[in-house]
Amino acid sequence: MTSLFTAPTEGRTPDPSLAHRRADATVTLRGPDGTLLADRAVVVRQTRHAFLFGCIGFDLVDLANGASQDPEYDGRLSDAWFDVFNQTTLPFYWGTFEPERGAPQTERLLAAARWFAERGTVVKGHPLVWHTVQPGWLRGLPDAEVERLQRERIRRDVAAFRGVIDTWDAINEVVIMPVFTAEENAVTPLARRKGRVEMIRMAFEEARAENPGATLLLNDFDMSTAYECLVEAVLEAGIPIDRLGLQSHMHQGYWGEEKTLAVLDRFSRYNIPIHFTETTLMSGDVMPAHIEDLNDWQVESWPSTPEGEERQADEVERHYRTLVSHPSVEAMTYWGLSDRGMWLGAPGGLLRADGSRKPAFDRLQELVKGEWWLPPTTLRTDAAGRVRFAGFLGDYRIDTADGAAAEVNLPAAGATSLTATLTPA
Amino acid sequence: MTSLFTAPTEGRTPDPSLAHRRADATVTLRGPDGTLLADRAVVVRQTRHAFLFGCIGFDLVDLANGASQDPEYDGRLSDAWFDVFNQTTLPFYWGTFEPERGAPQTERLLAAARWFAERGTVVKGHPLVWHTVQPGWLRGLPDAEVERLQRERIRRDVAAFRGVIDTWDAINEVVIMPVFTAEENAVTPLARRKGRVEMIRMAFEEARAENPGATLLLNDFDMSTAYECLVEAVLEAGIPIDRLGLQSHMHQGYWGEEKTLAVLDRFSRYNIPIHFTETTLMSGDVMPAHIEDLNDWQVESWPSTPEGEERQADEVERHYRTLVSHPSVEAMTYWGLSDRGMWLGAPGGLLRADGSRKPAFDRLQELVKGEWWLPPTTLRTDAAGRVRFAGFLGDYRIDTADGAAAEVNLPAAGATSLTATLTPA
Repeated sequence: MTSLFTAPTEGRTPDPSLAHRRADATVTLRGPDGTLLADRAVVVRQTRHAFLFGCIGFDLVDLANGASQDPEYDGRLSDAWFDVFNQTTLPFYWGTFEPERGAPQTERLLAAARWFAERGTVVKGHPLVWHTVQPGWLRGLPDAEVERLQRERIRRDVAAFRGVIDTWDAINEVVIMPVFTAEENAVTPLARRKGRVEMIRMAFEEARAENPGATLLLNDFDMSTAYECLVEAVLEAGIPIDRLGLQSHMHQGYWGEEKTLAVLDRFSRYNIPIHFTETTLMSGDVMPAHIEDLNDWQVESWPSTPEGEERQADEVERHYRTLVSHPSVEAMTYWGLSDRGMWLGAPGGLLRADGSRKPAFDRLQELVKGEWWLPPTTLRTDAAGRVRFAGFLGDYRIDTADGAAAEVNLPAAGATSLTATLTPA
Repeated sequence: MTSLFTAPTEGRTPDPSLAHRRADATVTLRGPDGTLLADRAVVVRQTRHAFLFGCIGFDLVDLANGASQDPEYDGRLSDAWFDVFNQTTLPFYWGTFEPERGAPQTERLLAAARWFAERGTVVKGHPLVWHTVQPGWLRGLPDAEVERLQRERIRRDVAAFRGVIDTWDAINEVVIMPVFTAEENAVTPLARRKGRVEMIRMAFEEARAENPGATLLLNDFDMSTAYECLVEAVLEAGIPIDRLGLQSHMHQGYWGEEKTLAVLDRFSRYNIPIHFTETTLMSGDVMPAHIEDLNDWQVESWPSTPEGEERQADEVERHYRTLVSHPSVEAMTYWGLSDRGMWLGAPGGLLRADGSRKPAFDRLQELVKGEWWLPPTTLRTDAAGRVRFAGFLGDYRIDTADGAAAEVNLPAAGATSLTATLTPA
């Protein structure tokens, strides 16, 4: 057991120019026969962002299973979803995934995960260990039995989804886990007995055992020094955290750039790439600041309003710009595409309850697939078969007029030289 | 490096009857010649509490050095001090202890520490590592040099005071240390670079190296889950913490029993004895709740008031009763005997600025040396030379009419049988 703590390194300064997200590519193109493709028109287009622009996929599980209750509405959601996003989070809350002991919803979730994966989406499962949304049959069992079942659950599900889901929120909200009092559950007593670090070790070790190549996250909503101390504890214990998950449900109002950057400064110093895992911004009233547990805010109606929608659009743009400007951020998941069925009835979606697009959706699309995206662009190779273009890190496709094509990837910021051989039509 | 985390054990339930603090002693007395002391009158009296009732000794350092500026006032303080307390905390803030590099106040503090120790007091030094009250000459030095000087400082002072001061707040307020922004200092950058756990390891290892038998504390004011996570980190890293220090400056109002017991429940689960290291309760207005850093509250005058003094007396009694009722608490230090020179000008003393005793002082004395104390009590040995008495854990003296005496110690709660041989006058 060797400490994995490392001193903060350079390269964590936010840069609004986003130079750290862009490459200046020089691509030398060869035809299918290997000769240089000199002086030819080609069309270059981006096909994928390296940055993970995520959104939960909860609302599309039925559609993906061919079981939509409202195909027109779900179709609208699906269209909007794939217009912007390239990563999704699917629900693996134990209590809803396996409400009846021994009858997990594996097939249903596997169908949904494959549906997303086939459409080029990175799929994440959320979460493997958490103290809420638990199955009723777990309560009252002795700690040792709960631990055994929890370990089995992790192994079973990570194994079943390997190759389709290779990213997991291994454990969720550990800061509060052993002192959580809002609801009786079987995991809190186990966490008190084992301690936070050993709970995390359990989650990471079991998941890693079944999928050594998986990307495993520690995820929390607690942005205080408590989470810093927990991260240091885990590093000190020699448990490798692949990604650090930060939640940012902003039901009580937008954090603003200053707080967001301060959070990033504090949490980026562990040299672990950061995923913003759960972000919501309201397009209606915000929840009063005195509410400590967001679940305590129960209102009959929480409408999206025109002013709220304009404010949300501005805040979404500002928040994405801030996160993308920080070199340590690798992913950002918006928590909820549409207001229909949203947690707490909050107007936090990017679409309204009827599936129509709010200004925030359009604004986000304009960033992700507009300002930060290279649309199909006609260029001409030089005498040496080279085209030059600048773009965000990610995948690009180059087509010739006669239907030959090549794929290239821009993996790192700055000037980069690549060679690509076209595949005939 | 093996984790020192252990699951919470039983025996942490508060008991207002204080049975865990009391013993029922049966002492068999023998005369100086070894014969049983049958059917004889003896006087039993308590001479020391096992529980550490502490108070800072800052205001008595001058007197102890024979350098009092106000002997009458200091005499009053001293009398009051020894009427109640058996542990003291002396100031080792680096900035005031060694304001000029290479010229530490060792002699002055050693004289004070010896003065207290000769009067039967356990002396604690506070603190060896902290990010505030630093010497000006430390600022701007490179991290590696700061670390070297910090390590040397710990070794030098722990060695110089060994045998007189064997209890140290090894490191203070680590939760905030790496993200402390109120004042530029040399320790915060070091803590950011090394991480909290390695800062703690540094403090404990260096202190332990010079005084292996020392009682070393981790001390913090942060009672949130952050401190829990930090303690778990330190245990996970295999660093033995002898005692867990919890501050409770209540400038913003008395915590109340519920909060105090909740804090004790959370922090007692690490099976490390708890010291309440820094407690103050106001005998005047309390500071508004919105002040986050107590240092930000600067008022021209903050008087002690008659109503405030009555409230303080009640709160002092309630707070001491609560702490003594919890089996995990081993010490409680009041932070400031008199209002004169008190931090922030707060009326938090047990004496007024003129040295007169507030109701809180009398109330505390009535507990510590009244309700919880065995005054000189005449008993008669039985035919087998036995006397029976009940009392708080600690030291007792038994005197005969002809001047022979014995000392006994009640070390553990419940029924206990002891034998003592009298020493002639």
